[in-house]
Amino acid sequence: MLGGSAVHFALAASFFDTVRVVGPVGDDFGAAELGVLEQRGIQTADIERVEGGKTFFWSGVYGWDLNDRQTLVTDLNVFADFVPKLSPESRDCDVLFLANIQPDLQRQVRDQCGGARFVALDSMNLWIEIAKESLIAAISSVDCLILNDSELRQLTGQPNLVRAAAKVLEWGPRVVVAKQGEYGAALITRDSFFALPAFPLEDVLDPTGAGDTFAGGFVGYIAAHPDQEITDELLRRAMAYGTALASFNVEDFGIERVARLTAAEIGERVAELGRITQFVDKPLTLRD
Amino acid sequence: MLGGSAVHFALAASFFDTVRVVGPVGDDFGAAELGVLEQRGIQTADIERVEGGKTFFWSGVYGWDLNDRQTLVTDLNVFADFVPKLSPESRDCDVLFLANIQPDLQRQVRDQCGGARFVALDSMNLWIEIAKESLIAAISSVDCLILNDSELRQLTGQPNLVRAAAKVLEWGPRVVVAKQGEYGAALITRDSFFALPAFPLEDVLDPTGAGDTFAGGFVGYIAAHPDQEITDELLRRAMAYGTALASFNVEDFGIERVARLTAAEIGERVAELGRITQFVDKPLTLRD
Repeated sequence: MLGGSAVHFALAASFFDTVRVVGPVGDDFGAAELGVLEQRGIQTADIERVEGGKTFFWSGVYGWDLNDRQTLVTDLNVFADFVPKLSPESRDCDVLFLANIQPDLQRQVRDQCGGARFVALDSMNLWIEIAKESLIAAISSVDCLILNDSELRQLTGQPNLVRAAAKVLEWGPRVVVAKQGEYGAALITRDSFFALPAFPLEDVLDPTGAGDTFAGGFVGYIAAHPDQEITDELLRRAMAYGTALASFNVEDFGIERVARLTAAEIGERVAELGRITQFVDKPLTLRD
Repeated sequence: MLGGSAVHFALAASFFDTVRVVGPVGDDFGAAELGVLEQRGIQTADIERVEGGKTFFWSGVYGWDLNDRQTLVTDLNVFADFVPKLSPESRDCDVLFLANIQPDLQRQVRDQCGGARFVALDSMNLWIEIAKESLIAAISSVDCLILNDSELRQLTGQPNLVRAAAKVLEWGPRVVVAKQGEYGAALITRDSFFALPAFPLEDVLDPTGAGDTFAGGFVGYIAAHPDQEITDELLRRAMAYGTALASFNVEDFGIERVARLTAAEIGERVAELGRITQFVDKPLTLRD
């Protein structure tokens, strides 16, 4: 079914700003697939159709509680020979998200967007294992790393999250987001630590794409505030929107739920996230 | 070294109220061990010394990121033949915590404390595997189940946390706390869901006893408010105190850190927990 980082990200981010997708597809990516994006106002002019090619493909199997998954197939297909050439409109972007792909490709895109005021990057264990040096170079050129919690530790060789994030901050980024699946996500900057649980759900059908949907809400929220400094306060609100978006993604297979999502539903879930994380301390004399 | 559920719990709870410990020890539990408890004002009259016996013993090995552990040795020792006989003072308790042990023993203690207004129970995978029926009977007789997240799912056969907790609430308890290790803890009642991350630490030396220390802070906080109804608001504050206490426990081996802890340090960490979980939503018009 339709999926992939760019699609999940773009659908989520489309609630916040105009999204331009850059990437290659094959003959199997037809009018129906393009239509899903265009229906949400997503700009598809930089999607490059490769004649005779096949679109990137991934499949995997989840464990009992959906917290672990095993990759069955990763076919790069048209991504294997992709050389990104961005249109002037895409080069001119204010905010850029480099979705998970070979880090050399991420760097080629990043280099073409010199004017972006906020650049975020996602990656995965595969690139940590086979292209670590290039990945670290790519990370060093962005403002924000968004990565699975366990991969952040793997990447830095630090078993401790706080230390792992601190190491990434030394490389250049000023924001690190550790995605923790159903346990939520943590935001680490030089000044502050913030953690937000996932939205509690009784029915989780398919976690695939939740991380990219989170990124779409998080980065989209920042893009929706072009005139505001990217403070910790703004980033925390962005975390809430990313978390809300991700919670819808897992409620159905593929892109089904987010494709039929409404702005009102997002707002309600962000408000509910505020309520389920709030406690009010009261003075208490403890026994020393 | 000195450890065990009762010891970790009692030390944490001693910051909130007078704690009476019930349980058997062997000849190897001497004046030094008793002194650690008595120094914090913990009542040890119901600790039963078994002549010629050995104290309960546990050892295990933690994985790289300390999130998984493997039990090497569990020796019940003096617990194997223990028949709890509580003093009148202990029977008269207002709040009772049944630390992790064979569930029949937990029920014998619970039955002797008919007047308690709040009873919490902890357990572990071993009893789910070999004494599930008795464990469910014990759980049905208490107000609150405090359990590791994964064990809660194992116990109920529900891979989803919300559904697993709902099943326990059907059995009788009105409060379920799912301990999630370094990802914090979730509180589920019939009316409300609440999640709190663990306190972020750069140096975690030994997670052993963190769950019992959490329980000591959580249950201790409730015990410190004898005249207050146990509302969701009170339970959430109790979660913050439990989380703060647990964060100290892991900073050193065994009971070292909590034994030298001060009330002021606890208060600071609770306040910091409030700050690292706070976000303020602002009105935003999304693109439908």
